Amino acid sequence: MQYSPKIRRLVSLLSRLPGVGEKTAQRYVLYLLTSDPQIARDLGSELHTLHDELRSCERCGNVAEIATGDNHALCDICKDTRRDPHILCVVGRVHDLLAIERTGAMRGRYFVLGRLLSPLEGIGPEDLPLPRLLARIEEDGISEMIVATPPSVDGEATALLLKRELASTGVTMTRIASGVPHGGDLEYADPITMGRALTGRRSL
Amino acid sequence: MQYSPKIRRLVSLLSRLPGVGEKTAQRYVLYLLTSDPQIARDLGSELHTLHDELRSCERCGNVAEIATGDNHALCDICKDTRRDPHILCVVGRVHDLLAIERTGAMRGRYFVLGRLLSPLEGIGPEDLPLPRLLARIEEDGISEMIVATPPSVDGEATALLLKRELASTGVTMTRIASGVPHGGDLEYADPITMGRALTGRRSL
Repeated sequence: MQYSPKIRRLVSLLSRLPGVGEKTAQRYVLYLLTSDPQIARDLGSELHTLHDELRSCERCGNVAEIATGDNHALCDICKDTRRDPHILCVVGRVHDLLAIERTGAMRGRYFVLGRLLSPLEGIGPEDLPLPRLLARIEEDGISEMIVATPPSVDGEATALLLKRELASTGVTMTRIASGVPHGGDLEYADPITMGRALTGRRSL
Repeated sequence: MQYSPKIRRLVSLLSRLPGVGEKTAQRYVLYLLTSDPQIARDLGSELHTLHDELRSCERCGNVAEIATGDNHALCDICKDTRRDPHILCVVGRVHDLLAIERTGAMRGRYFVLGRLLSPLEGIGPEDLPLPRLLARIEEDGISEMIVATPPSVDGEATALLLKRELASTGVTMTRIASGVPHGGDLEYADPITMGRALTGRRSL
């Protein structure tokens, strides 16, 4: 028995979600088919209107809600006047911004690069929004730029690129700490992490 | 930062999919937000109309496409006149039916129970569609009923229930074989599987 074209279309669309293969997509479809039809209908409506109500913040790239009749898509963080406008945290993706926001430790605002430098995937310096970042630093009079790209090969390469390209602005650039995670066991830390924990040691 | 109500609604709907928790649902939403808006829109439309175009087959419980102007929802297998109408394969879920169809070894038709007997989840004999199954056996003059519920505790209990409840019909009931899977290593087979492989041995 072949799946009907309707199911095959839905499976191929669901397979585009991160980490979802054809088997998982089929499981989702069969679940939706055998459950209350209202679930599929609600999910359908919400997804259909997703991009009508939400957009990228035009200043930082975070998710922004579009108020009706509003032409400027600014996110809650960019609108929040209690935030320090002189501290800018540069992240790779919106996911990373949310992870940092969950700590409650970030007083400044953000800049989402959208991608990291990745020679393997053919993403070079010209694919990063460096001119927009440069303009932002100058317009806002940024005093400290915290580079919060992940401590991976691509993340480190991106951090080095930012350091080189933005040196002329004279802005203070800092990098988030990398080391043994909270609750982590030294015994199981990989050598690179352990090495970073040592070189990044601070006075007690 | 709090997620907007729109995102929270979508996350809670996606979390209902099997195996999807809040974190995975958030990943899906962020992926859709940062990708081509057309993906979310297409997925939304397909999901919204899912139950308009597909329904449970009214004879066997398989997925059936609804042709426009057609009141009877019969699946492709029930419509297929080349199938042997006297062989009936009883399965727990549509997933299992599809797994059996993929083998191409089933010449008969199906009956989807929809659920298995599960005292732990409070599913008793009265929750299974036994009267409908009984009627089907008599109407179609079934000669062999293959019980293809899974070889789990619930699946075996369901098979025993069917054997007891349908004994009066005089239909020949068979059970799918359980044993060491193809390519499996005897060394790593659990004792129950190994025991079934032994008791279910066949002459060479």
